[in-house]
Amino acid sequence: MSSPVSDPSPKRAGIVGVSGYSGMELARILASHPHFSLELVTSDKWAGKRLGDRLAVAVPAADLTCFTHEQGQAHLGEVDVVFLCTPAEVSVDLAPRVLAAGARVVDLSGGFRLAADQYPQWYGFTHPAPALLAEAVYSMPEATGNADKLRTARLVSNPGCYPTASVLAVLPLLRAGFMEADSVIIDAKSGTTGAGRKASEEMSFSEVADDIRPYRVLRHQHQPEIDRALGMSGAPHVRVTFVPHLLPVRRGILATAYGRLRHGTGGSDPVGGVRKALADFAEERPFVHVVAAEEVRLQAAVGTNRVVLGASADAKLGSVVTFAAIDNLVKGAAGQAVQNANLMFGFSETAGLLRLAGAMP
Amino acid sequence: MSSPVSDPSPKRAGIVGVSGYSGMELARILASHPHFSLELVTSDKWAGKRLGDRLAVAVPAADLTCFTHEQGQAHLGEVDVVFLCTPAEVSVDLAPRVLAAGARVVDLSGGFRLAADQYPQWYGFTHPAPALLAEAVYSMPEATGNADKLRTARLVSNPGCYPTASVLAVLPLLRAGFMEADSVIIDAKSGTTGAGRKASEEMSFSEVADDIRPYRVLRHQHQPEIDRALGMSGAPHVRVTFVPHLLPVRRGILATAYGRLRHGTGGSDPVGGVRKALADFAEERPFVHVVAAEEVRLQAAVGTNRVVLGASADAKLGSVVTFAAIDNLVKGAAGQAVQNANLMFGFSETAGLLRLAGAMP
Amino acid sequence: MSSPVSDPSPKRAGIVGVSGYSGMELARILASHPHFSLELVTSDKWAGKRLGDRLAVAVPAADLTCFTHEQGQAHLGEVDVVFLCTPAEVSVDLAPRVLAAGARVVDLSGGFRLAADQYPQWYGFTHPAPALLAEAVYSMPEATGNADKLRTARLVSNPGCYPTASVLAVLPLLRAGFMEADSVIIDAKSGTTGAGRKASEEMSFSEVADDIRPYRVLRHQHQPEIDRALGMSGAPHVRVTFVPHLLPVRRGILATAYGRLRHGTGGSDPVGGVRKALADFAEERPFVHVVAAEEVRLQAAVGTNRVVLGASADAKLGSVVTFAAIDNLVKGAAGQAVQNANLMFGFSETAGLLRLAGAMP
Amino acid sequence: MSSPVSDPSPKRAGIVGVSGYSGMELARILASHPHFSLELVTSDKWAGKRLGDRLAVAVPAADLTCFTHEQGQAHLGEVDVVFLCTPAEVSVDLAPRVLAAGARVVDLSGGFRLAADQYPQWYGFTHPAPALLAEAVYSMPEATGNADKLRTARLVSNPGCYPTASVLAVLPLLRAGFMEADSVIIDAKSGTTGAGRKASEEMSFSEVADDIRPYRVLRHQHQPEIDRALGMSGAPHVRVTFVPHLLPVRRGILATAYGRLRHGTGGSDPVGGVRKALADFAEERPFVHVVAAEEVRLQAAVGTNRVVLGASADAKLGSVVTFAAIDNLVKGAAGQAVQNANLMFGFSETAGLLRLAGAMP
Repeated sequence: MSSPVSDPSPKRAGIVGVSGYSGMELARILASHPHFSLELVTSDKWAGKRLGDRLAVAVPAADLTCFTHEQGQAHLGEVDVVFLCTPAEVSVDLAPRVLAAGARVVDLSGGFRLAADQYPQWYGFTHPAPALLAEAVYSMPEATGNADKLRTARLVSNPGCYPTASVLAVLPLLRAGFMEADSVIIDAKSGTTGAGRKASEEMSFSEVADDIRPYRVLRHQHQPEIDRALGMSGAPHVRVTFVPHLLPVRRGILATAYGRLRHGTGGSDPVGGVRKALADFAEERPFVHVVAAEEVRLQAAVGTNRVVLGASADAKLGSVVTFAAIDNLVKGAAGQAVQNANLMFGFSETAGLLRLAGAMP
Repeated sequence: MSSPVSDPSPKRAGIVGVSGYSGMELARILASHPHFSLELVTSDKWAGKRLGDRLAVAVPAADLTCFTHEQGQAHLGEVDVVFLCTPAEVSVDLAPRVLAAGARVVDLSGGFRLAADQYPQWYGFTHPAPALLAEAVYSMPEATGNADKLRTARLVSNPGCYPTASVLAVLPLLRAGFMEADSVIIDAKSGTTGAGRKASEEMSFSEVADDIRPYRVLRHQHQPEIDRALGMSGAPHVRVTFVPHLLPVRRGILATAYGRLRHGTGGSDPVGGVRKALADFAEERPFVHVVAAEEVRLQAAVGTNRVVLGASADAKLGSVVTFAAIDNLVKGAAGQAVQNANLMFGFSETAGLLRLAGAMP
Repeated sequence: MSSPVSDPSPKRAGIVGVSGYSGMELARILASHPHFSLELVTSDKWAGKRLGDRLAVAVPAADLTCFTHEQGQAHLGEVDVVFLCTPAEVSVDLAPRVLAAGARVVDLSGGFRLAADQYPQWYGFTHPAPALLAEAVYSMPEATGNADKLRTARLVSNPGCYPTASVLAVLPLLRAGFMEADSVIIDAKSGTTGAGRKASEEMSFSEVADDIRPYRVLRHQHQPEIDRALGMSGAPHVRVTFVPHLLPVRRGILATAYGRLRHGTGGSDPVGGVRKALADFAEERPFVHVVAAEEVRLQAAVGTNRVVLGASADAKLGSVVTFAAIDNLVKGAAGQAVQNANLMFGFSETAGLLRLAGAMP
Repeated sequence: MSSPVSDPSPKRAGIVGVSGYSGMELARILASHPHFSLELVTSDKWAGKRLGDRLAVAVPAADLTCFTHEQGQAHLGEVDVVFLCTPAEVSVDLAPRVLAAGARVVDLSGGFRLAADQYPQWYGFTHPAPALLAEAVYSMPEATGNADKLRTARLVSNPGCYPTASVLAVLPLLRAGFMEADSVIIDAKSGTTGAGRKASEEMSFSEVADDIRPYRVLRHQHQPEIDRALGMSGAPHVRVTFVPHLLPVRRGILATAYGRLRHGTGGSDPVGGVRKALADFAEERPFVHVVAAEEVRLQAAVGTNRVVLGASADAKLGSVVTFAAIDNLVKGAAGQAVQNANLMFGFSETAGLLRLAGAMP
């Protein structure tokens, strides 16, 4: 399933913001990718440094010298695709410049994920490029299925980490009719790298270890993205109740999703029914890995581009519960970005992504 | 609020199973308690050892020698109360013997928490002492409010750790009418000491660290206990959907509870409404500590007998969410057991429990 | 052993810097202390807040309102002793003002620990109060044995966390003649709270978890303090090689100390010899707890004011190794500060310090 | 540097004991190796399961079915090399059988690492195959430099995890003459996977988290292996003092090594001298990565086959300290085993080992 569609000509890639956690992960993946060659990396923090001295990556990528963000702008036209690992406010300004320089864009920020009128409430700014936002293709390949659009898209918006886990947790059961659309509750738990790399007292080891805490309760910007992504994926009219929690782990998201079992769908074996729905969903989706509900765990996903799914149900309670585990930096960011880029350039969807070693233990 | 009700005569206490995590915590609390003197401790593992050589406790408790479980049986009559830190199967056999020896019992196991006919399904055995089970007083003081019964009870059943956090998370909003009784979902996260002290590959550091995983999904024995405890506490007819998760921390439980906001109760300020309901609940309950939803965290509860509560709501979604954090070994086990014993012997409810230093950081 | 020396009159205490980790721990200890009453707390961060809303402490301390650092200065004269939980640069300015206001001082910083001429190299400033520095009494009670001086001292300098563990690890064997004075190597491992409470990328959870790293290699300011404290304690002319490491834990220090077994001291049973030396040292020192070498661990010390010691030796290798575990915030900071204050005011050395529950598990 | 020596014909590999931590890591590496094809895996625990359902590995290895240990014996002759991920007692019995079946052996256990007469003391058994032990080639490529012998070796003994880190920490400075041979002290810290995968109370999360503790103090079986490996590597007559500690992390070893700076070698810049010695050592050794002393950390090595080295010195103290970080499961086990196998079959030393993504963060 991982054979290239045809003999592909290699493409040159650049990363803006390589020293953040998503950027680092992306560099590691691209450095060993069979069809992309990493040729441009920018980071104000690592400017002037050899990439291989900051990051354990294979040559020749290891020999790249990091540009400052400013310096990098002069070189945007020398690559075929630029991955933006920048805050949303930066990405919305930068994406048009990359396009103008002639490269295609995969944006890993939230800069192109919602409708224009949602930005003031959820991101705190008025979107400066609404036309480009309308053109952008939001792509979570297992859900949105935009393969055709991706081939020609100039700008691809890569989904957020929580939406990736959340959508893939509930979409199979919503589509198969097991879960009532008006009842979806997502209790999500994330590792700390989801918050990015920064100095912050509340993210310090002393404050995060031996703890779990909810944050942005019912007001996280990924909540509307989940609703919107479900709408694009054949599950309209869902309004999720979403609460994220911060875990004392570095990597990984577990989304536990609850819903009302749709009347009549359980039959005599609702557990079997929901599990079959997941298994059906996994077919033809190489990164979807279905296991028993109690085998869904971060360790089964971290280090890979997989989403690990499981579910259970109780007809007497009228409840269905599904679980999705991903690596927030791989399937939730850099891995999915490469998956999207593979589709943009006609490579196999899995190129460069199957060799990732799992992190177990 | 911690002054003794009257000049109390001190009572002698014993612990069966002192080398487990709950037993150790209980020994620490009783060793510094103003009205109980710890005079009997049993543990096959520590038999013959001086307690102070195994555990950092104050003298004179430090000078106690641990008996074997067998040896200890001959001394049950020498104390006024015995705390059973034993598995449910052991407690149901042992409790009658303690009573026969003339001491009162606080049982920390699940041996006396459900109705007799629930034991085969949830605990895997037929209850051997149904009459005693009927007599036992299940007591979570903030919820069940059994102070009068406790004064004369021979056998008190101490609640489970998950039920303590779960009941206290939802009871204030159920009683105040904010949450629909048929919609309660509890996503619980626990530290590893909740599983007890034992050799097990799945509880090894290599398997638990860097991870979170659900277990006993929709089939945990604490689910019926939550329903039953709510029923005893003025919130009848609740059937919770309950999913526990194992956290990579040693101590603490966070229960995140979701429900449908009851029609018409939100008014223009549902968030304010639910917070007031919590604040009202906290009055006259010295161990209930109410904070903003995003300040509920394990670190605020671990090391104390507190339950830390917070809540939020969204009228458009029609959702209410509440959070409860406790220390599973203190409020979820040994601390609540001492709180119950205080009430049994007419001491101040808080005696010996306010000096516990919080574990922050 | 914890009975007060006489019927003590209670003393009023203040804490400058209560919202840092040492200050928080100190507030918890003093709030439950039998002879001190906490009456003044300052913190710019918590100014105007009720202490009990920030920290799980017993009343009446819980009802204190935090002053700003500035506001607090007007009230320094209203207490008998002020504990300075401030950076060294602040303490050296503040201590004279506290004394002028009529209170005695226990300084938890490094502001009064070295000789004046060492400050430029190790702390980066010229000491502004050399006369006061000369007057200050540096006190690690188990080692320096300054009980008489403490009774009249105006300013007591509380030792650093690493020096406390390091000195107590090697002093028993140096004094007993088992370890060559010119060979002492200390490999120390500390939890993150030793670095204080602050925003810093390198102290973030993502950077500290799943890791251990050395820092300030052969250039930590605690290295000269160890030498000096040993010199004050009957072990002159020691120049330790000291390397600290950062552990992915919040609390606790383990010091592993290596030395050459002094010729002829091992005899036929050097292991027995070094263990006896530790046991002899522990006599009359209520906070020194001696165990087998392989039972020295953070979990045996955290939450208590103990130092847990163990040792081994190998005559063929000519090597001796000793281990010391402490809680960096208790015996390494707040607990030892209270121990010193007890001695300053003629209270029992252990007053308020034995009830601390161990943190196991 | 990673180009194959010639156009290699692929070799078939087998793993005995694939469900342990080293076996899992080995399977991940071999599943993506350009010149080995994994064709045989055994595990009593996973018998009958598809490998890809237990482990995130690439096809075709994912489609292998695990044999029992017993079943696997019949297929030993169908591969070119068998990696033994078994306890020492099992390896010593199994290795002759593999050889008899016609495959070469890389043994990851301690079964062939010491001299025959050392086994009773350090491993608790008399070695049953002393002739084979004498024939076995112990190979840590950066130190022992046995490339020629490896080409023809039937049985290669892969070094232990602690010896790998320890030898590579001190060998550069011993060879370059900076460290006195009679003064070497190694304070090692290891993650929990070094203890293997098993049920054990002392390795449970509750007992390991929030802690660090020494174990097998001065009596670990890796101590004589370090001495012996140094002797084979041009640093004879060293008798190290070795103390291992258990860290609350899953993967990685940090070895901190102390020694006396050899008289006259420091000159005016001993720090520069020792760093140059490390840099010289790194030349021509693709897996040796030299950084500043304070940049040596587990996160820089975990997930890779690197050893990360750093050093410092203090002429006044007469001390030198060096640090080595490795991933205990990669460079300390499976990665080094593949490195050795590459050399055995004439492949590039780095084949299949450079693409391993670092685990940062």
